[in-house]
Amino acid sequence: MALEAVLLAGEWREAREPVGSFRAMNPTTETVLDAEYPISSFADLALALQAAQEAIAALRSVPVETIAQFLDTFADNLEKRADELVATAHLETALPQEPRLRSIELPRTTDQLRQAAAAVRDRSWRMATIDTSNNIRSCYAPLAGPVVIFGPNNFPFAFNAVSGGDFAAAIAAGNPVIAKAHPGHPGTTKLLAEAALDAVQQSGLPPSTVQLFYHSRPEDGLKLVSDRRAGAVAFTGSRKAGLALKEAADRAGIPIYLEMSSVNPVFVLPGALVERADEIAAEFTSSCTMGAGQFCTNPGLVVVVQDEKGERFLEIAGERLQSAPAGVLLSEHGPGHLVEAVDTLQAYGAQLVVGGQRVEGPGFRYANTLLRVSGDDFLGHADELQTEAFGATSLFVFAKDTEQLVQIAERLEGNLTGCIYSDTGGSDDEQYAQLEPVLWKKVGRLLNDKMPTGVAVSPAMVHGGPYPATGHPGFTAVGIPASIHRFAALHCYDNVRSQRLPPVLQDRNPTGTMWRFVDKQWTQQNV
Amino acid sequence: MALEAVLLAGEWREAREPVGSFRAMNPTTETVLDAEYPISSFADLALALQAAQEAIAALRSVPVETIAQFLDTFADNLEKRADELVATAHLETALPQEPRLRSIELPRTTDQLRQAAAAVRDRSWRMATIDTSNNIRSCYAPLAGPVVIFGPNNFPFAFNAVSGGDFAAAIAAGNPVIAKAHPGHPGTTKLLAEAALDAVQQSGLPPSTVQLFYHSRPEDGLKLVSDRRAGAVAFTGSRKAGLALKEAADRAGIPIYLEMSSVNPVFVLPGALVERADEIAAEFTSSCTMGAGQFCTNPGLVVVVQDEKGERFLEIAGERLQSAPAGVLLSEHGPGHLVEAVDTLQAYGAQLVVGGQRVEGPGFRYANTLLRVSGDDFLGHADELQTEAFGATSLFVFAKDTEQLVQIAERLEGNLTGCIYSDTGGSDDEQYAQLEPVLWKKVGRLLNDKMPTGVAVSPAMVHGGPYPATGHPGFTAVGIPASIHRFAALHCYDNVRSQRLPPVLQDRNPTGTMWRFVDKQWTQQNV
Repeated sequence: MALEAVLLAGEWREAREPVGSFRAMNPTTETVLDAEYPISSFADLALALQAAQEAIAALRSVPVETIAQFLDTFADNLEKRADELVATAHLETALPQEPRLRSIELPRTTDQLRQAAAAVRDRSWRMATIDTSNNIRSCYAPLAGPVVIFGPNNFPFAFNAVSGGDFAAAIAAGNPVIAKAHPGHPGTTKLLAEAALDAVQQSGLPPSTVQLFYHSRPEDGLKLVSDRRAGAVAFTGSRKAGLALKEAADRAGIPIYLEMSSVNPVFVLPGALVERADEIAAEFTSSCTMGAGQFCTNPGLVVVVQDEKGERFLEIAGERLQSAPAGVLLSEHGPGHLVEAVDTLQAYGAQLVVGGQRVEGPGFRYANTLLRVSGDDFLGHADELQTEAFGATSLFVFAKDTEQLVQIAERLEGNLTGCIYSDTGGSDDEQYAQLEPVLWKKVGRLLNDKMPTGVAVSPAMVHGGPYPATGHPGFTAVGIPASIHRFAALHCYDNVRSQRLPPVLQDRNPTGTMWRFVDKQWTQQNV
Repeated sequence: MALEAVLLAGEWREAREPVGSFRAMNPTTETVLDAEYPISSFADLALALQAAQEAIAALRSVPVETIAQFLDTFADNLEKRADELVATAHLETALPQEPRLRSIELPRTTDQLRQAAAAVRDRSWRMATIDTSNNIRSCYAPLAGPVVIFGPNNFPFAFNAVSGGDFAAAIAAGNPVIAKAHPGHPGTTKLLAEAALDAVQQSGLPPSTVQLFYHSRPEDGLKLVSDRRAGAVAFTGSRKAGLALKEAADRAGIPIYLEMSSVNPVFVLPGALVERADEIAAEFTSSCTMGAGQFCTNPGLVVVVQDEKGERFLEIAGERLQSAPAGVLLSEHGPGHLVEAVDTLQAYGAQLVVGGQRVEGPGFRYANTLLRVSGDDFLGHADELQTEAFGATSLFVFAKDTEQLVQIAERLEGNLTGCIYSDTGGSDDEQYAQLEPVLWKKVGRLLNDKMPTGVAVSPAMVHGGPYPATGHPGFTAVGIPASIHRFAALHCYDNVRSQRLPPVLQDRNPTGTMWRFVDKQWTQQNV
């Protein structure tokens, strides 16, 4: 059977000298799917880099409206092909068609694209800054190279390298994208890329603005992200792969944005358990099992104080988890990774409460799992006991007292999120006041009385956090306009003649509504 | 003689187990100065890291006004000690007292500190973003660790690790600083740190907010910047040292901001030479010899078209450079580095036009130097011919025609600045239009009709640019508020109860004038 084509330099082409091939698997039936995809050699990646250079030059002279139209048209195209997309993604990932792929993830994806289109038209994301007395003007502008995006397995649409949040942000900033499919859902990615290419052609963007390859050898991926022609890299996935890419990109001075692992600690203070243990257990269970637990913001660590209420809370949560069905995992590797992670947790003192084993197939499943450990044991092996178990698995830590609860927070690695549940009457306020100053340093997003899953695409969202949850604490992967800034360079025009300035920096406000920072004040006025 | 003390954990202390000592030299007289400074062992750096952790906790509860007062008071203290500072800096660096240290660099330094104080009070730098419908709120906040700053040799006040732009920005963001003095001017740095400690005490900041050591073994510096407790690193200096620090910090996931080398290309288009060759040559010579050429924005590469006007321009520039006195360089290493750089340029085809040798002492000097090379030769060895010669030395490249001029731009490395001179009548406009899209990608700041030296402390300034001029094209080391963002983390509050929010994110605008991004509009109103 012929290998599927890759999308390079504006066309679907045969891979050049592929180094191998692969097929996706249906995780529900454990059967291999028909289509066969190439593992690209560096020849493909080199062509992508070269074609992207031409796109960069062309993109700079394209009207802003063309980029916005591309994003809108792409969103429209996805909606038109919804049936096909949802069916294929379900086949390749086992994620439910409803209530997930069709009515949640696809709308999230098109919403992100349309928000990006609106940001492109609005132009406020460029943070145009004008100092009239010195005649110095600056703004965010596209990078000098393409954005290379590696998408994760767990969101086949919304974080896909060729349609997700990183893609929307990179394009909105005016950059071409070189997307690497996740090998878990190549068919889905192919459909998305087809819809993207259609939109490229419909809107009149340079043909090489969107490129796609499916897979490569690890060494070729490292070569790609350390090529001087690359503008930036975005990666969502495992810590091991992320750190390897980071090392290669860092060495070449290429900015890389990573979203790696996170256990997303949830602290439930004693008063909250008195007030509403059942309710919180229900929220926890729902959050923990969502998407079979395969969310980067899955609540993998719950910290409570050791007392009867804490025990009772664990009991309710365990019962609920046990009665919830074990979802099919994204890939054949899923159960094995969970076995390994749970083994590690047990090796360092965690005890199994519920679950803890594979579920018979067909369908790659692992039982919803709770483990427990004492605060003392956690502090003794804090690093190991923060091993991420990517699935519906969570570790409860029982702190001796509030002081130990704070010590536990102090030992946390960088995380995307941290939650504190407290009672509404104020009895937990003193403990909150002790815990928050410590937890705050460890997380990108601090929540009250709310589980961490559910990452709203809001301008105020931070889907980021300290290393090793991400590679830089000053950025967010979700939320517009902030996520766009990752893929932009600051450019300054010093004494540049007015007709030579980009429109966003000329005296006249190009839209009449764009926000600009003029002489230290935000304004929509002309200069 | 007793070693000078280091400033650690709020006090001047004896260095713990120093691994050696050093003295500064007077570059004008080539004599060693009296005071002897310790080369710190890691014991000092470990103490600094530990003390900084305590400062972080304390700083978070300090009123904003205290930080602003510290910055203002520090500026006042510097003015009170101006005589001493200027005399010492002149002694250690040979930079002229006038017109440089007293009336230019010291005022720049105090202005930066006061601008930072104003930004702290204003709070708009925090980019508070509020999404009222989702009740999600985010802002920039201090890092979880101290900022480690390595200052350069060429601005003993304005870029000093304990008083310069990085320092002001790091403190403004609410971080403690661990400063490493440049060993070329330890006495100046000591005075600055004394003034800083006085201001810490006068304003009531946590004692370990400002710490200083003078020198360390390279391996201990690498250990410091890769310590997990560090929040971020700022470095200004040589590419070799910068890249070594970058590798260490990157590996530990610590953000590092570098300002390394730059040849700052200046393109002078043919019409400009017809119109005003003399004037441009005068501007060039003044810019090239400023501070004995030891500016990061020194115009080290001039590109013209090969014709009579280009030759004449070189001739005038050469005459002017020859008639200007050769300034005393910052250190004994200066002349040797220039010999090496000029040797390299000559080895790859550059020919000497004027200068090209050491100037007899006393005083470390190197003649003002011009070299020339053909466009063909430049393109043949573009990397080597971009070797930075840190002094009043510049290489003229003679392009065959405009096409080659653009090819030359295409081969440039990342630079802080790029200048284009063109005639005022429009005869160069077509060439400008060909050159600018290429040059734009290579520089952080694009200038018209103006030399690159002179980096205004303006909100619109970008003192940054693509690698290897810096480590990240999205940041600037000069300009407030943007430079502050380097030392901040994005923090998000999701559903956090209103009284628990930081004041900048509460419904009420804390100053009544702070700019916040509320529901996608910049506003100074309450929510």
